[in-house]
Amino acid sequence: MTTPPQPAICLQYGLGTRAAYEAAQKSSQASFYAPIAVAITGVGLVGGELINQILALSAPSPFRIVSLSSSKHTLFSPQGLSLTPTSWKADLLEAEPMSPDVLQRKLIDLVSPNGKVVFVDNTSSEAVAARYPSLLEAGVNVITPNKKAFSGDAGLYDRIVAASKKSGAKFLNESTVGAGLPIISTLKDLVATGDKVHKIEGVFSGTMSYIFNNFSNGQEGGPSFSSVVRVAREKGYTEPHPADDLSGSDVARKLAILTRTIPSLQSTIPLPQGFKSVPTTTLIPEALSSLTSPESADEFTNRLVEFDSESDKLREDALKDGAVLRYVGVIDVKEGIVKADLQRYPKDHAFATSLGGSDNIISFHTERYGARPLIVQGAGAGAAVTAMGVLSDLLKLV
Amino acid sequence: MTTPPQPAICLQYGLGTRAAYEAAQKSSQASFYAPIAVAITGVGLVGGELINQILALSAPSPFRIVSLSSSKHTLFSPQGLSLTPTSWKADLLEAEPMSPDVLQRKLIDLVSPNGKVVFVDNTSSEAVAARYPSLLEAGVNVITPNKKAFSGDAGLYDRIVAASKKSGAKFLNESTVGAGLPIISTLKDLVATGDKVHKIEGVFSGTMSYIFNNFSNGQEGGPSFSSVVRVAREKGYTEPHPADDLSGSDVARKLAILTRTIPSLQSTIPLPQGFKSVPTTTLIPEALSSLTSPESADEFTNRLVEFDSESDKLREDALKDGAVLRYVGVIDVKEGIVKADLQRYPKDHAFATSLGGSDNIISFHTERYGARPLIVQGAGAGAAVTAMGVLSDLLKLV
Repeated sequence: MTTPPQPAICLQYGLGTRAAYEAAQKSSQASFYAPIAVAITGVGLVGGELINQILALSAPSPFRIVSLSSSKHTLFSPQGLSLTPTSWKADLLEAEPMSPDVLQRKLIDLVSPNGKVVFVDNTSSEAVAARYPSLLEAGVNVITPNKKAFSGDAGLYDRIVAASKKSGAKFLNESTVGAGLPIISTLKDLVATGDKVHKIEGVFSGTMSYIFNNFSNGQEGGPSFSSVVRVAREKGYTEPHPADDLSGSDVARKLAILTRTIPSLQSTIPLPQGFKSVPTTTLIPEALSSLTSPESADEFTNRLVEFDSESDKLREDALKDGAVLRYVGVIDVKEGIVKADLQRYPKDHAFATSLGGSDNIISFHTERYGARPLIVQGAGAGAAVTAMGVLSDLLKLV
Repeated sequence: MTTPPQPAICLQYGLGTRAAYEAAQKSSQASFYAPIAVAITGVGLVGGELINQILALSAPSPFRIVSLSSSKHTLFSPQGLSLTPTSWKADLLEAEPMSPDVLQRKLIDLVSPNGKVVFVDNTSSEAVAARYPSLLEAGVNVITPNKKAFSGDAGLYDRIVAASKKSGAKFLNESTVGAGLPIISTLKDLVATGDKVHKIEGVFSGTMSYIFNNFSNGQEGGPSFSSVVRVAREKGYTEPHPADDLSGSDVARKLAILTRTIPSLQSTIPLPQGFKSVPTTTLIPEALSSLTSPESADEFTNRLVEFDSESDKLREDALKDGAVLRYVGVIDVKEGIVKADLQRYPKDHAFATSLGGSDNIISFHTERYGARPLIVQGAGAGAAVTAMGVLSDLLKLV
């Protein structure tokens, strides 16, 4: 009674299950190079940091980097590229021209039972994201901090889920929300173990966090909104055009991603079909809404001062009620609300007291964490922590 | 160049690698019952909750429960027990007598290439923990919220690590620190991706959290220490004998577990060889140190009042410096310090402002989270969240 029956399917190969299994095991252990082939597209700040983090893993590494691609060039070697932290940039500059179609075909050809193939997309490109379904369907795993595919229209997302289900290849996107913070993995754990999510609420944008931690700190007075945005821009905490942060769309994208991580939500609240349908409060003054082109960034930033009296009043009104302002994302399952909004929080609320710098803070109110939420807090942006989130996803495939 | 060479080891079975792999894959998919066999020992609050959480998973479940054991009885079926949330307790009461040796042998016999076997230990027994090395060496995975093996003497821990390495069977212990909170998994991710831990600091004991959140809240005056402990005991937040919490050994155990989760620490700081060598500040008054037997619990609790003037003074002195008291665990890599201690924190520190109830809060100061730490906060005790941590470990084996 101790050995489970051997399913018939195995016997037709003329092998017992154990032998077939051990053969497969040993073949992988005996392979001549690291079993997981990693192709990295996008070698900017995050991509560069990721390459360095992978190269710094202690030997024997489970990964071999089979491809590096910028928008212009691509390196490829099925056995793994010989990369060093100091030379890969020069190597890539001299490499052959990048052809996304050729790269995709080569990666698909690499898929074999001997080891996994992973496509890592460090771009923010919609065109690259559009390739995920084909890659997944052919068995190539996809790992990315690129929010486009998971926060965009339902069609692409549905095809990603279907392709992954069909082939068994995984898509992992921890870094799309909170960078290296354990946000998506925590939510997946809560849901997978049967907990019921009541509400997710948080400061999801590092830029918005910095702006409001400085603008509305619970004290009388304080710097003007326009000056805080100006300083944030000078420090590199905003996108090149601050309107890209102030629109709230980054928060809306993260909310779309989180709602999709909880499939059961679909039966309880009307889910946004992508970030554009998340009710989103913009902080772009209407009079400046035409100044969103890249070349208008300076004019936009300069003219924000015209609206400081309005933001001063918001801050004062909040303070009269003992509250601060925070730009938050909310998924309220009980109330059926998903929104990106500027809200007031009492001065003794965690969003007021424990936030600093450009921290993210996300609170999970669930059935099991009933009285008080599970909270994750920390830097939610930056190349090192974003790359770390990508690498921790990669390590989940080992 | 796109297909990796087939290692010779596979050919001796007369199969290409792909066929061997697919045979193994299909045999597992075609098995007649859920592939992961779970044996649960310890069916108290946590064990009972875990059984219910497993039974509530949506079908098809990856798990079949092959055994339930209390200290007196054991149920066993290699095909999986027919359990319902309402009947398993009665079934177990009528089952055959528990023999740990027999159970261990049966589980080891179940190990096969067709599916994993997991031993889940929901007890707090040292005797059960002592079985982990034999189980692991034979290929049985071990998942547990039982701190004994991982916080005790180095000999047992070293044998666990060696056995796991030898067979490839895993030991997972997320719930030993912070219950269902992502503490150990976050630390493992940080370390595995190459981040450098500078300091881990936190309120690791839900009981200590409750006591000091109420005793030292940053306001003048407040309830006496003895009254807070009395209320905590009445609410069931302490062990039956409050000295078991006030000794600080629970915090010391968690520190021992965390230091062992960071192997690289061994070269940088003198690591505790189990919790007894963690410098630990006890809150048990010396005059009451003989009252630690179970039958002394009432006397101990009553006589705490004799020492209230001392704790009042500690609280007042802290307040004069704008600080509150918190009982914390600290792993300071730079200073080479591991300790469980009563410390002061400024009134605007996260440990002072954002803690409530019996929350745990753990901050990870690392190279990548340089300016501000990564923080995880929430309920760190309770059957539902502890069982959830165990189940999330189980799901990692899927």
